[in-house]
Amino acid sequence: MRIALLGGTGDIGQGLALRWAYDTNHEVLIGSRDPERARTAAEEYETELDSRGVEASIKGFANEMAADRADVVVLAVPPYHAGDTVDAVADKLDAETVLVSPAVGMKGDEDGLHYHPPSAGSVTALVAGRAPDGVSVVGAFHNLAADKLANLDAELDLDTLLVGDDEDAKETVGQLAEGIEGLRALDAGPVANAAEVESITPLAINIARYNDGMHDVGVRFH
Amino acid sequence: MRIALLGGTGDIGQGLALRWAYDTNHEVLIGSRDPERARTAAEEYETELDSRGVEASIKGFANEMAADRADVVVLAVPPYHAGDTVDAVADKLDAETVLVSPAVGMKGDEDGLHYHPPSAGSVTALVAGRAPDGVSVVGAFHNLAADKLANLDAELDLDTLLVGDDEDAKETVGQLAEGIEGLRALDAGPVANAAEVESITPLAINIARYNDGMHDVGVRFH
Repeated sequence: MRIALLGGTGDIGQGLALRWAYDTNHEVLIGSRDPERARTAAEEYETELDSRGVEASIKGFANEMAADRADVVVLAVPPYHAGDTVDAVADKLDAETVLVSPAVGMKGDEDGLHYHPPSAGSVTALVAGRAPDGVSVVGAFHNLAADKLANLDAELDLDTLLVGDDEDAKETVGQLAEGIEGLRALDAGPVANAAEVESITPLAINIARYNDGMHDVGVRFH
Repeated sequence: MRIALLGGTGDIGQGLALRWAYDTNHEVLIGSRDPERARTAAEEYETELDSRGVEASIKGFANEMAADRADVVVLAVPPYHAGDTVDAVADKLDAETVLVSPAVGMKGDEDGLHYHPPSAGSVTALVAGRAPDGVSVVGAFHNLAADKLANLDAELDLDTLLVGDDEDAKETVGQLAEGIEGLRALDAGPVANAAEVESITPLAINIARYNDGMHDVGVRFH
């Protein structure tokens, strides 16, 4: 499968790119608004993988080009760019494309981070509302510990929660997730249930802040 | 320590009563609006513990009486009764009493359960706003799998998240929590961070609904 990571130069994009290239045979494309930045990041990821004996071909493109070539498009961009990024690539998406939303709206104050969704109720719902008709949207990869994800020496043992209204698309993303070693995909229901999934991200950051010895916190349900 | 479980006839109250009586030397009082119901529940818990060779004295009282005698008062009542229950016992609380809020506001639809906090922002914040001056409020025990908690044969291996503005009170509740075998207390910061803690409860219920083989779901962070 061909996966485009739009905003793939950021921390969650880096982690997913490295893990998919290291653990699976999926083809990874890095997208950025600036194609030169995308190419630079792609080369860095290739170098990192090469140092571990993995010969991966990761290519960098402008977001539109990356989206055009991919089966699955991950919006690994800040939450306030999620809608604009969907608009920018909309005419490159078709009914077979699965759009994945991992972004979380948060605001911080002296107490910690707080969940701060857009008026659509969640970033996933915002993306689902902006996506072209027929394009399936799945919320996933919100609650991953980004530094652990990007460190191929770190064992994950984490859950990622999926929300989506299209069961086939959710199944596709679940399989992509579970291709990463130590990552388990759990179904949290339709897009309407996304807010509770997204709001784990500020909580995990607060837990890392308030508990000695906890860094880069992820979650497991059982 | 003497712990009053107001609404201690419900599922979370039952679980906490059994676990504290079984795993610790704390004295457990069951409170209810109806003292007869409290006494009946207390006898049932004693019988359950006796069948496991634990001789515990659990007594039932009207909520006001239970609160009056306790060092720590747990509001194990439905979220819409949390404020009224605080009012009902307010003149029995003093500056040494720690008030614990485990309730979560939720609403359900065909998709699942959704976090539905009171206008205060969270049930914990509502309780903190209604508590008499000087009484410390700690949010805790929201995200426990109630059936597992009440089944003394079940190993927990779960986290409970604490929020509170008084570090000493939070420390007290954390020690009570960790007296229960398999339960770890994590600090999630002040009361202002309660919403993200409480909203795990509907998420855990949604996960149990949408994933085969998962029941009575709790959480671990790492």
